Amino acid sequence: MVSPAVRVAPSAANRASNLLRTIQYTHPPSCPCHSNPNHHHHHRTPTLANHVRRHMATPIDPSREKEYAFEMAASSIRFGPGATKEVGMDFKNMKVNRVCIVTDQNVAKLDAMKQAVEGLSREGIEFTVFDKTRVEPKDSSVKEAIAFAKPYNPDAFLAVGGGSVIDTAKLMNLYTVYPEADFLDFVNAPLGKGLPVAKQLKPLVAVPTTAGTGSETTGTAIFDLVSKKAKTGIAHRNLKPTLGICDPINTRTMPSAVHAASGLDVLCHALESYTAIPYNERTPRPTNPINRPAYQGANPISDIFSLQALRSTVQYLPRAVKDPDDFEAQSQMLLAATLAGVGFGNAGVHLCHGMSYPISSQNPGYKHGGYAVPHPIIPHGVSVAVTAPAVFRFTAASNPDRHLAAAEAFGVDISNVKRENAGDVLGEAIADFLVKLGDQPRGLKDLGFKASDVEALVEGTIPQKRVLMLAPNLNEELEAEKTELRGLLERSLSY
Amino acid sequence: MVSPAVRVAPSAANRASNLLRTIQYTHPPSCPCHSNPNHHHHHRTPTLANHVRRHMATPIDPSREKEYAFEMAASSIRFGPGATKEVGMDFKNMKVNRVCIVTDQNVAKLDAMKQAVEGLSREGIEFTVFDKTRVEPKDSSVKEAIAFAKPYNPDAFLAVGGGSVIDTAKLMNLYTVYPEADFLDFVNAPLGKGLPVAKQLKPLVAVPTTAGTGSETTGTAIFDLVSKKAKTGIAHRNLKPTLGICDPINTRTMPSAVHAASGLDVLCHALESYTAIPYNERTPRPTNPINRPAYQGANPISDIFSLQALRSTVQYLPRAVKDPDDFEAQSQMLLAATLAGVGFGNAGVHLCHGMSYPISSQNPGYKHGGYAVPHPIIPHGVSVAVTAPAVFRFTAASNPDRHLAAAEAFGVDISNVKRENAGDVLGEAIADFLVKLGDQPRGLKDLGFKASDVEALVEGTIPQKRVLMLAPNLNEELEAEKTELRGLLERSLSY
Repeated sequence: MVSPAVRVAPSAANRASNLLRTIQYTHPPSCPCHSNPNHHHHHRTPTLANHVRRHMATPIDPSREKEYAFEMAASSIRFGPGATKEVGMDFKNMKVNRVCIVTDQNVAKLDAMKQAVEGLSREGIEFTVFDKTRVEPKDSSVKEAIAFAKPYNPDAFLAVGGGSVIDTAKLMNLYTVYPEADFLDFVNAPLGKGLPVAKQLKPLVAVPTTAGTGSETTGTAIFDLVSKKAKTGIAHRNLKPTLGICDPINTRTMPSAVHAASGLDVLCHALESYTAIPYNERTPRPTNPINRPAYQGANPISDIFSLQALRSTVQYLPRAVKDPDDFEAQSQMLLAATLAGVGFGNAGVHLCHGMSYPISSQNPGYKHGGYAVPHPIIPHGVSVAVTAPAVFRFTAASNPDRHLAAAEAFGVDISNVKRENAGDVLGEAIADFLVKLGDQPRGLKDLGFKASDVEALVEGTIPQKRVLMLAPNLNEELEAEKTELRGLLERSLSY
Repeated sequence: MVSPAVRVAPSAANRASNLLRTIQYTHPPSCPCHSNPNHHHHHRTPTLANHVRRHMATPIDPSREKEYAFEMAASSIRFGPGATKEVGMDFKNMKVNRVCIVTDQNVAKLDAMKQAVEGLSREGIEFTVFDKTRVEPKDSSVKEAIAFAKPYNPDAFLAVGGGSVIDTAKLMNLYTVYPEADFLDFVNAPLGKGLPVAKQLKPLVAVPTTAGTGSETTGTAIFDLVSKKAKTGIAHRNLKPTLGICDPINTRTMPSAVHAASGLDVLCHALESYTAIPYNERTPRPTNPINRPAYQGANPISDIFSLQALRSTVQYLPRAVKDPDDFEAQSQMLLAATLAGVGFGNAGVHLCHGMSYPISSQNPGYKHGGYAVPHPIIPHGVSVAVTAPAVFRFTAASNPDRHLAAAEAFGVDISNVKRENAGDVLGEAIADFLVKLGDQPRGLKDLGFKASDVEALVEGTIPQKRVLMLAPNLNEELEAEKTELRGLLERSLSY
């Protein structure tokens, strides 16, 4: 593993790299030499001289400087059937004495919780259980959870549940470590102040019981900010769990409809992060690395995760949905959810997610089959996937090659497809996949939306700046952006 | 991102998963249902009933239980030309006041160090510099470094250099946090006690100046234990840096020969980790997760990293070696080194690395061209790659599909290759690659070894248990193992 640092440092090379460093750090707003290699390239082997020449001709405008670096961070992940039982030893190893377990009233009855509680008890670790997590958390439910955690003042948190539970636990951790903070301090700007999370939080171990959100690997927590009628959240890499324990036995209890909806969330995490604008097209360049967002745009490492997650989802989701005994497919979907979590957790999502929030919250009364709840519900994964055929037809022009690669992951033979048809081919592949998966709405109309509802959905999407800024091919000017969103939603009415 | 945790929990499914969990946790020594999907599979969709039936017929021998879970951990990675400058802000953000900078006397003169020092100074962070890191550290040089660090008692460490520097910094960190520990306490068993690193260490930021070791992402530190005449080390995921700053400007000063040798280390990290035994074939299963080794065998996440690193190395290493101005290829090789680091850092390496240690230390007097040192040297990457053609011919029988996939990464058309020829095809592809790269020895003879030296190399390889245990297709019985190693080394005399 050790490679000698022995080297000569010829002064010419030193001069060249000093020059290059100066150029790099001061103004490479769009230098193709260092751009993401999977995005466009002007030339293969730039010489330093050409490099300098090109830059010298470019005027500098610091306020619009583009990003030049990306940062990858992910929770440690342990994956194995039965691994939930190890969690007590993990806390013991971390010298943790008091744990706040976070779950919800459904998961509280499941075997995953039993295994976790037994694991803690076996090691003599003191714990309390908060089981009032709200599915699709609101700021009020989050504040209630925080109020529960503060007086208990645990050494660590353990989240057992789906994305709502894990996200709520992240927020309990954050505001227990920052007890004096105002709730809006860390909430994404412009709705909140968007302050970075500078302190190290307490250990948080996440045990997912759904294969969808990937929340066990990300620094993102999503909730409804009711006063602003917006789905928003807090996103910072310091919010991420210490460890995600992915135990595929814990997702076996998901009914088929939940497998399907959760898996569609994975599908869109993968597709959106893979097609998000490249990190080095994002502005502004942060002046301090702590301000580099987790949702930074596609980058060469997130790409690997996103594409693998896409391939796995295409291969295993249909099997996991159709056969409740197909443990291999279920296990692979849990792994895919986690991989996609690392991908979008470091690259971001864009239009499908941006539009999904108003689609879910403006639900005209649709109740998805297989969900045993007493009220109308458009599951998150369903609300995300319903616009996917239209979205990727639209975004393809930004990077046809990536959209073709995605179509290939769906099994399409792309050898004779023209680049200008990449969007149609991918859109068609996604629509086919959704139809074959079964029991999915074939557009917003099937959810009860009418053409006259589109305007309200557009208005509900506009505040999702954090994800819209990563949307490729979307006009930055507000009225033009609205027109494009309107078109996407209209084309999503039925497919 | 939030997927509802709403679900029904039918009691039949609950019973089934309880049963499955019991089976999983108590004895799935080789259940193909949960094995790495890229390894062999007996059947596609096991039913629970079949599952139980098969297990019930298997007698339990707890002492030989195989692993059932894998764990992935990696440092956060920031990648970008010019990112070295940010390091002062990183320490400031972590509330660090006193930093021990670790480097060597060559790197100390390079611009990477200048950027790092300026970064710290700009933020008013106090620091001291240890620049006496030995290339290819010995226990004595490591102890000297630790003795330097202890009285300074820094809040954090900053390593600027190649693998030797980063590894030494990890050990300085470890023994500063465990000031009373005996040096052998954490050294890999059987040479040391192999204790796990239970405490959280101080922040360590690693700035690599070579594109090879991947040490910026791993929990491994390698050195010569002179009294035992063995290259060994300390490996635990808690040893890994907090952050790796991969700044491709810092590798521009590498001479072409160092690009080549470092890149061959990357090539073998990728090939060895991708072909290592699968994690769920490793024994024994740890009774506490802290004892799960970082070198745990191939797993579905390490595979992604290893294969991508292999593809990138095949594509970019020849360019980086041939053209000192090919900044794109150099950048891609730094990224590949880091990706391979995550891969082998969580899966391990095997025969090439196991044999490389005696090859380097028993050097008959070879001095590799392009290395400006006053003594004979077989660069680590060269000593690793020289056995690669023979090694992968040998290991292919364990998993022909993986070896064919690796051959495909070298550009071989494998569509008509028979599985029994996988080893020959991959071995040939590697040999071709080495020849075309140029200036590489065509076997041990070119390094000055004679057939009569093979026995000593075999004896020097045997103590490398930690890596040999991950070698596929290697006989466990000592005399048979020696015979196989002898054969590999003899076939590596010339290719």
